[in-house]
Amino acid sequence: MSINANEKNELTVGDIGEVELIKRILPMLRQPEGRIVLGAGDDAAVLAPLDGKPVITVDTMSQGVHFDLAYTSPADLGHRLFAANLSDIAAMGAKPVAAVISLALPGDTPVSFVEGLYDGFRELSERFDVAVVGGDIVGSGDGITATLTLIGEAGENLLTRSGCRTGDLLLLTGEIGLSEAGLQNLTGNVELPGELGAAADKHHLRPAPRLGIGRILTDNGLATACIDTSDSLAISLHHLSEMSRVGFVVDADALPVSAALIDAERQLAEDGRHPDYNPTGYALYAGEDFELLFTSPPENVDRIIKLVNETDISISVIGETVVPERGITLLRDGRETAINAHGFAHF
Amino acid sequence: MSINANEKNELTVGDIGEVELIKRILPMLRQPEGRIVLGAGDDAAVLAPLDGKPVITVDTMSQGVHFDLAYTSPADLGHRLFAANLSDIAAMGAKPVAAVISLALPGDTPVSFVEGLYDGFRELSERFDVAVVGGDIVGSGDGITATLTLIGEAGENLLTRSGCRTGDLLLLTGEIGLSEAGLQNLTGNVELPGELGAAADKHHLRPAPRLGIGRILTDNGLATACIDTSDSLAISLHHLSEMSRVGFVVDADALPVSAALIDAERQLAEDGRHPDYNPTGYALYAGEDFELLFTSPPENVDRIIKLVNETDISISVIGETVVPERGITLLRDGRETAINAHGFAHF
Repeated sequence: MSINANEKNELTVGDIGEVELIKRILPMLRQPEGRIVLGAGDDAAVLAPLDGKPVITVDTMSQGVHFDLAYTSPADLGHRLFAANLSDIAAMGAKPVAAVISLALPGDTPVSFVEGLYDGFRELSERFDVAVVGGDIVGSGDGITATLTLIGEAGENLLTRSGCRTGDLLLLTGEIGLSEAGLQNLTGNVELPGELGAAADKHHLRPAPRLGIGRILTDNGLATACIDTSDSLAISLHHLSEMSRVGFVVDADALPVSAALIDAERQLAEDGRHPDYNPTGYALYAGEDFELLFTSPPENVDRIIKLVNETDISISVIGETVVPERGITLLRDGRETAINAHGFAHF
Repeated sequence: MSINANEKNELTVGDIGEVELIKRILPMLRQPEGRIVLGAGDDAAVLAPLDGKPVITVDTMSQGVHFDLAYTSPADLGHRLFAANLSDIAAMGAKPVAAVISLALPGDTPVSFVEGLYDGFRELSERFDVAVVGGDIVGSGDGITATLTLIGEAGENLLTRSGCRTGDLLLLTGEIGLSEAGLQNLTGNVELPGELGAAADKHHLRPAPRLGIGRILTDNGLATACIDTSDSLAISLHHLSEMSRVGFVVDADALPVSAALIDAERQLAEDGRHPDYNPTGYALYAGEDFELLFTSPPENVDRIIKLVNETDISISVIGETVVPERGITLLRDGRETAINAHGFAHF
C-alpha cells in the first residue's frame, strides 16, 4: 500500500531533504556517555574499545514483504527491525553495544513516518542500553527498505549453532505460533477474542528479544547450542541439526503451542481454509516468534529452569537430541513423523 | 530499468530460493584465518578482539537512484558500494576489518546478478584484506537495495571532521570531477575521447578508496581534520566548516580539475546544455570522487607531499583555513565568491 503522503498533505522527506531529515533524527538517537568516542555526524562512528569479541548481525525489512503499513505503525516497524537484530545477539549469548541504521525511502515518505520509525528504535535502544551511532538515509525508487546492523560483544562462552550433542535436551523459551496468530488477527483472516487477540497482535508487532536468557546461558555455561526461532521452529531445528550434525525428537505434547494460535487454527479449519485442524503442525512452521531454542546436557536443566523462572519468561523442555541418522521428527501418539524445513520463504 | 531476467530466461533468485542462494555465495566470501571466530552461517558473526577502537560505517545504494543497470555491471555496483564504505574508513584514518552485506532483491533478479555483485565485493575485500562475515538476503517488492556495513579499527589518532584550525592548509588527493565526467560519458551525454573516457568511466564505476593516505596521515599525526568528497568538494568543505567552526578560501588555480571534466564541460557548454563554460564551478559541485579532503598545519605539508608522492596518488594544496566569519569562498582572478553547499541530493 502507498503511504498516501500527498493525500494527507503531510510534510515529506522530499520536501525537507536529507540534511534537514538527519537534523531532526539526531536528537532521537541514544548515544550513551563513555561508550561512544565519536557518534553520528562524521565519516564513521567510533566506539570505545570493546571488552570482548565483536559480534555483528544485520537484518533488512522491505515494504510489502516484511511489513504492511495497513496494520504496522512506523514505531512497530522500528521495534520489529531492532528486535530481530537483538534476538540474533541474544541467540549468541552476547551483549548488544551499538547500532547503525540505513533507510532507503521514496521521496513522498512523510517525515512523521521516519520519526515514528526512530521512536520504535529508541524504545529498544533505551531498554537494552544500545547506542545508535549513525546510519545512512538515501532515496529509493519505490518502497521503503530499512536495514539495521548491530554490534555486540561476546565473552568467553559463545552460544553457536554447532555445539549440540546426542543426549542433550532441547529447550524453548515462550510459546510458539503467537506471532503467526497475531499476523492472522491483524490481517483480519481470523478474529481472536479480546485479550487473546491483543497479546498476539503485540507479540507480532513488538516482539521481545530474549537477551536476558541468552546471558543466563552463557554466563553460567549452561547450553551447548542455541538459535532463535525467527524463521520457524522447524527451520531452526534444521539449522541446529545441520551445524551440529545431530537429529532431534520433538515431543508434541510438550510443545508450548500458544492459545491464540489454537484459536486461529480452529477458525481457519472450521470453514475449510486449512484442510485439517492441526495447531501443533501449524505452530511448527510459523515464523517470527523470536524465541530461543537451545540444547543442554540433562544435568543442567533444573538449574536453567530455576534461573529462567526468576525472569517472567516461560521455558519448556520440548524434546531431545539424537543421532543424525534419525533425522528430525515429531513424536505424537507414539509415532514419529518427519519435521520438514518449512517456514517463511523470502522469494 | 528492469533486469529482464525472464526475457533472457536466466535462473532467478526466486527459482532457487534464499537458502540455495546463500550456499552459492558463501564460498565467495573472504574469511581470513585468525580474524574471524565465527563466520557467516550462525545467528551472528564473531570477530577476534580488535586492537583499537571499533569504527562503524554503513552505505546503501538503491536501483534507479544510485545505479542504473544500463551501464553499471553487477560487479561495478559491488565495487562502488564497498569502495564508498572503505572511503569512509579511509577518511577516519582507520583500518577496515570486516563487512556484512544486506540485499533486498525482487524475486526475478538473476542469480548471475548476485554472483556478479559478490565478485565486486570480493575484489576489494581481497585487495584490502577485509573479511566478509555475513549479511542478510531478503525479498523486495520492486528494485534492488544493497547495504554494506563496514567495521574498522582506529588507533590513537583519529581523523575527524572537527579538528581543523585557522591557518591550516587545505589539501586534496587526486582530481575533482573525474567521476562526474565518467557518469556523463557513460550515460552518453558527452563523448570523451579514448583513454580520457576510459579513465573517467573506470573512476566512476570502480572508485579507489584512499585507505593508504588515511593511514599515512594518522600514523604520523599529520592532519587536523579529514573528510571524503563523496557528495561534492563543496559539500565536504561545508561539513568541515560546520564541524570545525572555520572558514575556507579555495584557490581556483590550485584546484586539480580533471581533464575529462574540462572536456565534458566544453561539450555541455558548446551546445548550450550548460549556460556558461565553467569547469571549475562544475567540478566543485560534482560528487562521488571519493578523494580525501584534509587540513594540516603548514609545517607538516612538505612531509605529507613527500609521503603521498611515494604512493601513485597525486596531492594538491588547494587553499587555506580562515576564521569562520569569512565563510567558504573560491578565490579566482583576485576575487572571492561564495561556495554553496550543493551536491548530490537524495530526494
